Amino acid sequence: MALPVASPVRAGIVVTGTEVLTGRVTDRNGPWLAEALRGLGVDVGRIVVVGDRPEDLASALRFQLADHDLVLTTGGLGPTADDLTTAVVAEVQGRALRLDPDLEARIAAIVAGLHAQRGWAPPGAAAAAGIRKQAMVPDDAAVLEPVGTAPGLVVPGPGAPVVVLPGPPSELRPMWTDAVAVPAVRAVLARAVELRQSEVRIWGPPEAELAAALRDHEDTHGPLADAGLEVTTCVRDGELEIVTRYAPDAAAAYAGLLDFLHTRFGAQVFSDDGRRLDDVVAELLLARAATIATAESCTAGLLAGRLADRPGSSAYLLGGFVTYANEAKTAEVGVPAELIERLGAVSREVAQGMAAGARARLGTTVGVGITGVAGPGGGTADKPVGLVHVAVDVEGRVHHRELRLGGTRELIRRRTVVAALHLVRQALQ
Amino acid sequence: MALPVASPVRAGIVVTGTEVLTGRVTDRNGPWLAEALRGLGVDVGRIVVVGDRPEDLASALRFQLADHDLVLTTGGLGPTADDLTTAVVAEVQGRALRLDPDLEARIAAIVAGLHAQRGWAPPGAAAAAGIRKQAMVPDDAAVLEPVGTAPGLVVPGPGAPVVVLPGPPSELRPMWTDAVAVPAVRAVLARAVELRQSEVRIWGPPEAELAAALRDHEDTHGPLADAGLEVTTCVRDGELEIVTRYAPDAAAAYAGLLDFLHTRFGAQVFSDDGRRLDDVVAELLLARAATIATAESCTAGLLAGRLADRPGSSAYLLGGFVTYANEAKTAEVGVPAELIERLGAVSREVAQGMAAGARARLGTTVGVGITGVAGPGGGTADKPVGLVHVAVDVEGRVHHRELRLGGTRELIRRRTVVAALHLVRQALQ
Repeated sequence: MALPVASPVRAGIVVTGTEVLTGRVTDRNGPWLAEALRGLGVDVGRIVVVGDRPEDLASALRFQLADHDLVLTTGGLGPTADDLTTAVVAEVQGRALRLDPDLEARIAAIVAGLHAQRGWAPPGAAAAAGIRKQAMVPDDAAVLEPVGTAPGLVVPGPGAPVVVLPGPPSELRPMWTDAVAVPAVRAVLARAVELRQSEVRIWGPPEAELAAALRDHEDTHGPLADAGLEVTTCVRDGELEIVTRYAPDAAAAYAGLLDFLHTRFGAQVFSDDGRRLDDVVAELLLARAATIATAESCTAGLLAGRLADRPGSSAYLLGGFVTYANEAKTAEVGVPAELIERLGAVSREVAQGMAAGARARLGTTVGVGITGVAGPGGGTADKPVGLVHVAVDVEGRVHHRELRLGGTRELIRRRTVVAALHLVRQALQ
Repeated sequence: MALPVASPVRAGIVVTGTEVLTGRVTDRNGPWLAEALRGLGVDVGRIVVVGDRPEDLASALRFQLADHDLVLTTGGLGPTADDLTTAVVAEVQGRALRLDPDLEARIAAIVAGLHAQRGWAPPGAAAAAGIRKQAMVPDDAAVLEPVGTAPGLVVPGPGAPVVVLPGPPSELRPMWTDAVAVPAVRAVLARAVELRQSEVRIWGPPEAELAAALRDHEDTHGPLADAGLEVTTCVRDGELEIVTRYAPDAAAAYAGLLDFLHTRFGAQVFSDDGRRLDDVVAELLLARAATIATAESCTAGLLAGRLADRPGSSAYLLGGFVTYANEAKTAEVGVPAELIERLGAVSREVAQGMAAGARARLGTTVGVGITGVAGPGGGTADKPVGLVHVAVDVEGRVHHRELRLGGTRELIRRRTVVAALHLVRQALQ
């Protein structure tokens, strides 16, 4: 029940766009800005997502302005009529909108350049109307020069200033650098204090054990919040993640908590420095100069695909086999048809045969075999949906795990990939 | 542009969790609930994301309750102390919390079963404290039976009821069915009116061509909004998506728009009935009783993994090859080392060799080969980052496409998978 470790400065974010509200587009700006603000010592209190309706945007702005020191908006700066952020922000901040003719000329030059570059006809009257709309500036606002075609704004108010940013992440991110240099924003940021964020990741115990551990720690050392630690926990694909935020003067208290977690959970703690599972596995492979090959049935390539997520993964990932049909298990990685016939495709022995076969075919240090019932059909009393066998073969030494997973087909396949990566990690450690 | 097509019933969503607010976890519940509500004729006005701070959650609830007919919360129902949604909702709705001993017993039974199934020690005192916390129910609230371990709630207020749902999507989604059956929720939904949503998907033209087409349609037929159509467009991985919402009495106007799009874009329209690319490809394969095998380099299994997303995909997906290293291209699918040496791994000929090799090795109707430079390193002047060759071999008839993609490694790999699926679709159509 952590009392928040609050920065004296709090920001609110308003994300606009019906396509975000309805989930057709995933917002990437809110989380990015939250992290950028955290780095500046600013807490984000709330993110509000609204559609392209002026009254919803206005109420969201007023709500965020009520108890934040800084408000940011993303999106709604385009040339079309349904892009209305600037007008609504101006109204809420009580500022008249005026055309900035110099800005209009600068945007017109950018648009003309884009048309020329793409071989389109020069912009006509419709484009000119859009450009004029984008060059309307609220009184006393600072203009952030366009990265694409839309300028951003910092609009002062009677209360907190509003930073108006474009929707495309490729425009928003560079513009953020200009925004924090505007005096009205700098004045707010000057009151912020540094907040650190540390992450511990644990694989193995259930969430309740972590909850119990944190309660035990508080019983001995007093409430975490009193020590200046704001602890949040979450479970993600079976991993427990403990994120702690604290001011620099609580560093000793955090070190104590970290020691406690290591003592309590031992080797189940697989990261205490922000590294994720993929980082840990990649570093273990690189440290041993090991190579890896996969043979996947129910995950059908998702493990190999994830191993290739990191740039430079060709240093260890040589390749893999998607052995979805039984015949593919035999043809691709040499699992005897007789073995599959006798024990079933979803069995420890077949998983081990796949791991060994992948390793042998590509001559790698490590081979991984995955076979399971992802559902929703195909389950039996003996081998229900969610039963998965994972085998990891490291130079002939075989590790195996039988998983009993719940949830949808998607969840079962994703969790299988996570469990397989952990088995690789454990086999290499 | 579009005047909104508004339902008389509006819902607000409050997503809780510091991990969502800070972007460590992407919220999938808000968009899913927005879509589920739309299907019931309910508009979603705003989504508010808050961290695990009681005062922020309380203010978000009051904000949403002020002008919505129904409010939904997601997350914060776990056994740990930072999961505080129930307590805050009870307070905001003015309801005392009481232990429900029967519910406590039911949760305890679920937890004991989970421990037994996973081979953990039986739950102890710590677990009991968490279970007791999860069994606290506000006065007059309806309990939604746990899907995982956390029950949901429908908490009446002086104003709109609040539906309290768990954070894991696999628990939230089934529980939603129970939530809409609760009388307090049914009473709100009864006032909603049907809103249809139709989706058209186009592959090929740039977004500007679609914008121009919609302008032309409005020039001839008048504003879409005047005809009762709320049209939003977005580009996703190169696909253009046109989503139209309308009341039943605007069905004829929608039929006119649909005709217009078919006339204008012809075979570039690949779906006008809500089907996604994956559905279209699966149905084409099934209709021909065709089988498919993949050989992937830069995508490293993501195409095969996506082909296996659908239940029943074993009817067409036999298997695949992740040929990440050059030697794997030779060893797994028989691309001559000499060819790779002479033309480079990223070449039309190697992609075609991979497609043919995958097909030959598994005896399938269709083979797909993908080879490209995903970056960020590895690009040259000749073969820059983003250059990808995709080949589709259907019974010896070869289709090829050279892609020049921009963006991050992740984006290039994802867009390659989409482009490859479209090439399979075109080859089969």
